[in-house]
Amino acid sequence: MHVSVNVAVSADGKLSSRRREQIAISGEEDFARVDRLRAAADGVVVGVGTVLADDPSLRRHDESHRRRTKGAEAPPPARIVADSTCRTPTEADVLAGDAATYVLTSEAASGQRRDALEAAGATLVTAGDERVDLAAAFGALESDGVGSVLVEGGGELVFSLFEAGLVDELTVFVGNVIFGGRDAPTLADGEGFVSAFPALELEGVDRVDAGVVLEWTVPEDNR
Amino acid sequence: MHVSVNVAVSADGKLSSRRREQIAISGEEDFARVDRLRAAADGVVVGVGTVLADDPSLRRHDESHRRRTKGAEAPPPARIVADSTCRTPTEADVLAGDAATYVLTSEAASGQRRDALEAAGATLVTAGDERVDLAAAFGALESDGVGSVLVEGGGELVFSLFEAGLVDELTVFVGNVIFGGRDAPTLADGEGFVSAFPALELEGVDRVDAGVVLEWTVPEDNR
Repeated sequence: MHVSVNVAVSADGKLSSRRREQIAISGEEDFARVDRLRAAADGVVVGVGTVLADDPSLRRHDESHRRRTKGAEAPPPARIVADSTCRTPTEADVLAGDAATYVLTSEAASGQRRDALEAAGATLVTAGDERVDLAAAFGALESDGVGSVLVEGGGELVFSLFEAGLVDELTVFVGNVIFGGRDAPTLADGEGFVSAFPALELEGVDRVDAGVVLEWTVPEDNR
Repeated sequence: MHVSVNVAVSADGKLSSRRREQIAISGEEDFARVDRLRAAADGVVVGVGTVLADDPSLRRHDESHRRRTKGAEAPPPARIVADSTCRTPTEADVLAGDAATYVLTSEAASGQRRDALEAAGATLVTAGDERVDLAAAFGALESDGVGSVLVEGGGELVFSLFEAGLVDELTVFVGNVIFGGRDAPTLADGEGFVSAFPALELEGVDRVDAGVVLEWTVPEDNR
């Protein structure tokens, strides 16, 4: 599975303000760039925190780019939610429409919540006892034909993916705004590393809109 | 007073790991760049949290660069600590050596702590009731001949400076490492903004060491 993380942060490294309200950080040029990334991926992944905070559809992508790169008959990218206890609401926008929706979950999810999400159209992938085992879940997705994913946050999921050594690429739009806040969500939250920090390689630096896009890769040996 | 903030962050926007241990983010090239910035400033400022965590000397700077820009007889840059309650230890390295040391404090500091720091050689600047009034304190420094400062963190002080509308420039070295951690210190901590976010202008983007230096300015109208 090829895992690419793409996020937009404030100049001080935050995904949003401490109120977790979605605030536009980038502009049209970056929006088009992200749309092309989505169109090229087999699936788009977010954590359940992002679903609860923003209710994203994960549907929008550049159709013509998708046809060119994936063929005329390519289905839209699958929507994928990492959700250890099936907290995704059945009315969430990721469950609406025709695109496939996977919920990656763990044994800790109740039968009731699992049934509710399956009834709402989700395909459940269960791996892990208390928290979703992301490596195993991604392996199952790959067996199902999802060979590449674009991860769009939030910070808890991104940290977990780095912790599991699963991130191949990290692309960050750094915007021209200060959010501040010791409790505001950042690019990589979680417990944090205290040693053996993942080391990246800087592949690209491009000025986009009023900010800059940094393209990092994560060599296998550095995870 | 011209206020320039310069910090190094991980690719995920953290000043250090959640243990607040100082970890080298940049390399020799960036170190030399920061040293030149220090040599060109009248004073170098940190928050008391940084003094307590790292015990920096704030002394090192490029002597030849200082002579060229400030004249042969220029004193070393003043060391300045923002410390609302005079928690700076009397044995702190910022109080050692010959350079002047200012402690910016508030009425909330006890007489005992104030006396101890003055006995240890600090010049106290008192402004504000519970927390140091940074605008007033910087005004007092300017009257004392400190016309430009380089602020080196931490995140609480940097946020307070943005909140007070005092930041003219922000220079960020973004390094090739992931620290992670929802409790790790970031470039701008504090309470965080929820509206009227300070808007920056991107003046420069330079690849340095294994990372990138982003130079932002903060137009007066955007504070």
